[in-house]
Formats: sequence, C-alpha cells, structure tokens
Amino acid sequence: MGYDQMKEDCLVHEFELIQTIRSRQREYPWVKLGIGDDAALISTPEDTLVAVDLLMEGVHFDFSEVTPAQVGRKALAVNLSDIAAMGGSPHSAVVSVALPKSRGGDFALEVQQGLQALAEEYQVALIGGDTNTWDGPFVISVTVLGAPIRDRAIPRSGARVGDWICVTGELGGSRQGKHVLFTPRLQEARILTEQFEIHSMIDLSDGLASDLRHILRESRLGALIELAQIPVSEHIVHLPKAWEHALGDGEDFELLFTVSPQVGEVLIKSPPFITQITKIGEIVAGSGARLIYPSGYISDLPKLGWKHVF
Amino acid sequence: MGYDQMKEDCLVHEFELIQTIRSRQREYPWVKLGIGDDAALISTPEDTLVAVDLLMEGVHFDFSEVTPAQVGRKALAVNLSDIAAMGGSPHSAVVSVALPKSRGGDFALEVQQGLQALAEEYQVALIGGDTNTWDGPFVISVTVLGAPIRDRAIPRSGARVGDWICVTGELGGSRQGKHVLFTPRLQEARILTEQFEIHSMIDLSDGLASDLRHILRESRLGALIELAQIPVSEHIVHLPKAWEHALGDGEDFELLFTVSPQVGEVLIKSPPFITQITKIGEIVAGSGARLIYPSGYISDLPKLGWKHVF
Repeated sequence: MGYDQMKEDCLVHEFELIQTIRSRQREYPWVKLGIGDDAALISTPEDTLVAVDLLMEGVHFDFSEVTPAQVGRKALAVNLSDIAAMGGSPHSAVVSVALPKSRGGDFALEVQQGLQALAEEYQVALIGGDTNTWDGPFVISVTVLGAPIRDRAIPRSGARVGDWICVTGELGGSRQGKHVLFTPRLQEARILTEQFEIHSMIDLSDGLASDLRHILRESRLGALIELAQIPVSEHIVHLPKAWEHALGDGEDFELLFTVSPQVGEVLIKSPPFITQITKIGEIVAGSGARLIYPSGYISDLPKLGWKHVF
Repeated sequence: MGYDQMKEDCLVHEFELIQTIRSRQREYPWVKLGIGDDAALISTPEDTLVAVDLLMEGVHFDFSEVTPAQVGRKALAVNLSDIAAMGGSPHSAVVSVALPKSRGGDFALEVQQGLQALAEEYQVALIGGDTNTWDGPFVISVTVLGAPIRDRAIPRSGARVGDWICVTGELGGSRQGKHVLFTPRLQEARILTEQFEIHSMIDLSDGLASDLRHILRESRLGALIELAQIPVSEHIVHLPKAWEHALGDGEDFELLFTVSPQVGEVLIKSPPFITQITKIGEIVAGSGARLIYPSGYISDLPKLGWKHVF
C-alpha cells in the first residue's frame, strides 16, 4: 500500500468515526451547529458556566479495572460534578482525545458510548470534539458548558462565619469503584440551589481536607471539623484509620457546602432529597481548618489530599 | 520524606502553579468568575461558538524544534483559527494539560506564557483549566468560546453553484515553521464577515485537498480547482512537486471560503486587507473536486491530506 493510499484510508477512517459519532447525536433546541464544522454554535442564556477536566490512562484510571465506556462516562461525570458544585445545570459538551493507535476505532466508539449515555441522561448535547491518535496512552479532555440555576452561581468564596459545613453522601474508598461509577450530584445541587440559600459550594474531587481548604482560602475564613461527624463510607469503615481515607482519598464527587445554621437545621431535620446530608463542622473566623477528635482533643486538620503533581 | 509530607509538598506546588497563573490574568468585563472555582462564569452574547483542539508532543510538535512557549501559543492559535473560520470573534478559553513530571513546574509556566501572550493580543480571557502531571509526553487541550461577528456563523455547508473558491495567504511547507508561528486569520475573517457575504468558510488545518472536501460534503456540491492558481508557499516552490505540498501538507491555517462571483471580483480587484486573496476555482453541481492541470488535462483532485488516525 503506497503512502498516498494509506493516507487516504486513514482519512476515511477518521471521517467515518466522526460521522458515526455525529449520527448518534440527538437534536437539542439550543444547538444551531453541532459536530461537523470548525466550531459548534449554540444559543445560551446570558451567563455561561465552563468546566474542564482531563483524564489520563494510568493516572486517573487503568484499563485493567475499568472499561472504555466507563472512562468515557467518568470524563463527562467529573465535569458535571463541577457544574453541580456551582449550582448550575449543564447543557453542552465538547470532547478531545488522544487515542492509542493500538486500540483501534472500536475503542473510540466504546468511550463515546459511555460518555454519550450519561450525556443523554442529563440532556447534555455533545456539540464537538477533536480526535487524534498516537502511540501513547489514552487521554481525554472534556469541557462542559452550563447555566446557573438561579441568578448567580454558588462560588467557593461565599462562606460566612457561623455557617454549617455540610456534605452529601459518604466519603472515602472511592477507588473501590465509586470514582468511576459515581452519580454527579446535579439533582441534589439543583434542589439545594433552587430551594435554599447556599453560601458556598465545591465538589469533593481532591478529598475533603484539600477541598475544604479551597473554600476557606477563597472565603478567607477558618473551619472547625468534628471527626466523629464525618460520614465514612461503608467500604472503608473497617479500616484502621478509616477517617484518614474519608478526609484524604479524593474522587468522592460529593458536594461540600456551607449554609446558615437556620438553613442547616432545616436540611438536617427535613432532607429535601434521599441522598444523605451531614453537618461535619462550622465556619469560624481566622484561617485554616482544625479537627475536633472524639476525645475533645483539637489539632490542625491533617493536610491530606489527593492530586497528581510534580 | 514521609508520604503525607510528600503529598503536602506536591499539593502546595500545584496550588502555587495555579495561583501564579491566576495572578497573571487581566480582568475582562465578561468574566464574572475566572480561574479558581469549580467552573468559570462568564456573561456571553446569546450565540456562542465553541472550538476545541488537542495537541500531543511527538505528533503535533517536537521539543527539539519548538519551545514550550511556542507550543502554548500554537495550542490557542489553532482554536482561534477555528473561530475565525466561523466568522467569529473569540472571547474566552479554558486549558487542560498533561504535564511530563520530568519537565517540572517552570515548563508549565513557559507553556502558559506563550499561550497567554497570544490570548492578550486578541483579548481572550483565560478563565479556567485543569493541571495534571504524569510520566507521559506533554498533552494540551484548549477550548475556545467566541461569538459570531454577524447575526449568524459562516458554516461549511453554505457554498452555492457558481461560487468562487478563494484562499488567503500561501500554502504548503508549514512544517518549516509556519505551523507554530502562524497568525490566526481573525482580522481577515472579521473584515470578510463584516463587509462581504461569505457563503462558506473553513480553516486549512488538514490541507487544502482534505479541507475543501469538508465544504463540498457539507454543501453537497462539487468543485473545479485550477492547479496553476494555487498560491504555493515560497518555502516549497523549488520542490519538484510543490503543488502536492500546497494541496496536502496541512497546518497552513489559512482561510478557504466561497463567495458569489460578484463578491469574488471585488475581493480580487480591491483586496480589503494586506493578506493575499487568491481565487483557486469554482463550485459546481455534483460532488467531489476535480483538478485542472496547466495543460488543460482534468482529473480528480488527488486525495492528499494530513491527519493522524489509526
């Protein structure tokens, strides 16, 4: 096969891959131009939320443990979790990938199927992408656009002294499956945002200890956390230092948020959804987080937190 | 150094990297929340263009030939070229990266500097990103948001029978430098879009032969291209089959567009900007592209075109 012929075959192959993905797209009223042009064109509300996350094979997932479809799902889900944490509703997404040549085109379609199934569940339009192949590991970057549910987004910076610090669900041990299979807390975020005054919010991706610090830094405040109140996942509760996992494991993709004590009492007494809400502490003046042990002993919150860096 | 301490050091490092990038950002009136939350929040016109491109070390660039800053610049520039090709004006960008651990944090800042310098040149706000490290090669994905300059975007699908097919600049040999140092044709696209009725437009990333086919497929029409009219770059004009490079090399990032003959004549006689505009052929009924050789011989346009696939 000559070089030109090879290039031609390849070209058709990529074109067909994109056409296949394109043919799978539902129509959404806000999408004026979807996959198949230099850029997509959508009609959006005036305020647009933008989140981006990039996942790498061997770092965020391993194909000995997860399927291509699960990775596609996760790549979108982590971004939906970010939009949820802003009190937003996602509407559109673009996807760029570095595909390992050795895995072939079916692999790309499996990833896309996993991503698309979740997209359709939440009415997120897949409006564009960039497909590349190489001899390296699989890399996928997803950018999600959304709109704030109320007239403003919920920032990390809005915590106030006296706020209750609350968390949805259970924490720790996410690597045993939840980090791939988790449900982004979009529904919970919508109800919280629509029905209550949420002062600040973040999703737990790096781990409670690390993500709480983001709220404290941006709000220029401190926190007192009660160790006994942290909702430890049943998957790790038997471990000797389960609470360290709950504080540091990361990828729980639960919501951490702060509310006035009045709102907090309502949320705890009459939870507005089935997902558990737990008060784990309070916002205080100052900076940094302190941990109250069951014995009453107080120390700085250990600096746990999972994130790949240099 | 214990594991916890190592994690702590790493965490600070990444936090500092992001804080450094954040501190470098100018304020733009449409950015309500920039770098530093789960998602960015911007105020946009109703219509939003979205383009995404992912570049991989060893595929789209090689650090033996280009600097980290040049790669950062290119990663944004290819997206600005996409927005230009839609008749749009870019306003915001998010960046996700897989950074090689071996290159350290300064490398990340150099990439960011190159990207940011171009962003500032075109008043594009860097509103968010995702920073990851691994032992693999450098990968960078950029998503750019923009707004159509007129009431509609210029699609690939708008070509009409009889349209003149025009191209900006010169083609071929981009690998000798232009693929990194090119100026995205935003200014030319703005003038074309504001002052003329452009029927269809695309930027030349895969190569003229390949990209023209996108316009023909989407418009469901054919084309006659005059080989002698193709503006061959001075860098390759000495090569034996220079025209093959001009048709197939890719990464010229020039604009290919179609206009009525009336508009075409005005553009050629009184070019509205200094960048060369050349008529290279005409849109005809049917499908596919045919090439007219200087001898008068006509054949199908060779299926050249550069794109990495399986």
